[in-house]
Amino acid sequence: MSSFEQPVEAFMASYVAAVGAKDIEAFVKLYAPEVRVFDAWSQQEYRGQDAWRAMVTHWFGSLGDEKVEVYFVEVFSTVGEELAFGAALARFTALDAHGTALRSLTNRFTVVLSKNGARWEVIHEHTSLPIDHETGTAIFAP
Amino acid sequence: MSSFEQPVEAFMASYVAAVGAKDIEAFVKLYAPEVRVFDAWSQQEYRGQDAWRAMVTHWFGSLGDEKVEVYFVEVFSTVGEELAFGAALARFTALDAHGTALRSLTNRFTVVLSKNGARWEVIHEHTSLPIDHETGTAIFAP
Repeated sequence: MSSFEQPVEAFMASYVAAVGAKDIEAFVKLYAPEVRVFDAWSQQEYRGQDAWRAMVTHWFGSLGDEKVEVYFVEVFSTVGEELAFGAALARFTALDAHGTALRSLTNRFTVVLSKNGARWEVIHEHTSLPIDHETGTAIFAP
Repeated sequence: MSSFEQPVEAFMASYVAAVGAKDIEAFVKLYAPEVRVFDAWSQQEYRGQDAWRAMVTHWFGSLGDEKVEVYFVEVFSTVGEELAFGAALARFTALDAHGTALRSLTNRFTVVLSKNGARWEVIHEHTSLPIDHETGTAIFAP
């Protein structure tokens, strides 16, 4: 990411490209070595780039010949000198080898970036779905 | 909150006090008018202080003679000139009128604060539990 771009938009564009290409290195380099992620799925948190690399390696590896398109919508961001933050809804759509949509899921997505020299890096990411208080199950957006 | 304190710690202390006292006004004034909250429960998001006030009014009103103790642990924060961010695990414990613990729940908790003059206000909060990918149910920490 260039420091001349709005860092939240630049992150989102790079995230979309890395996921679309299933490019592990392009994905991991968006994150700081000490990144702490609260991910929507499976475990309480991921601490550090290596843990996060293992997650994305598993994710991309599980896709077979599917691809994943991501759209960030309703983006809200604030940028300071040293810190930037964005909140959005992220819509993930799995496509088969012919580009046909198989399934979609919308997450709440929060990202915090820190400026490291000229470069913005993600130091925190939090994605989730809301939970129904009565049943304890995730509420999937329409 | 005073601008002379570390804003994330000051927010957390004020949050603990407001929840402990079930003080709606003390709670609401921690948040900016335009706050956007991704809450762990029930709905995709809350936009603005009025929506958030309605949530907390319902929450505190539902407690009867119970009280809620909050502990923030594993706090990770970064403070800039205009923006501050904190990530933590928040443990909520419901106590009966005699102070006996009834039940506990740990959330992932992210908060972003913006400096408005001399005052730090929460512009974004994101709380959640991770979800089991197979079953779609929330994973409760031990």
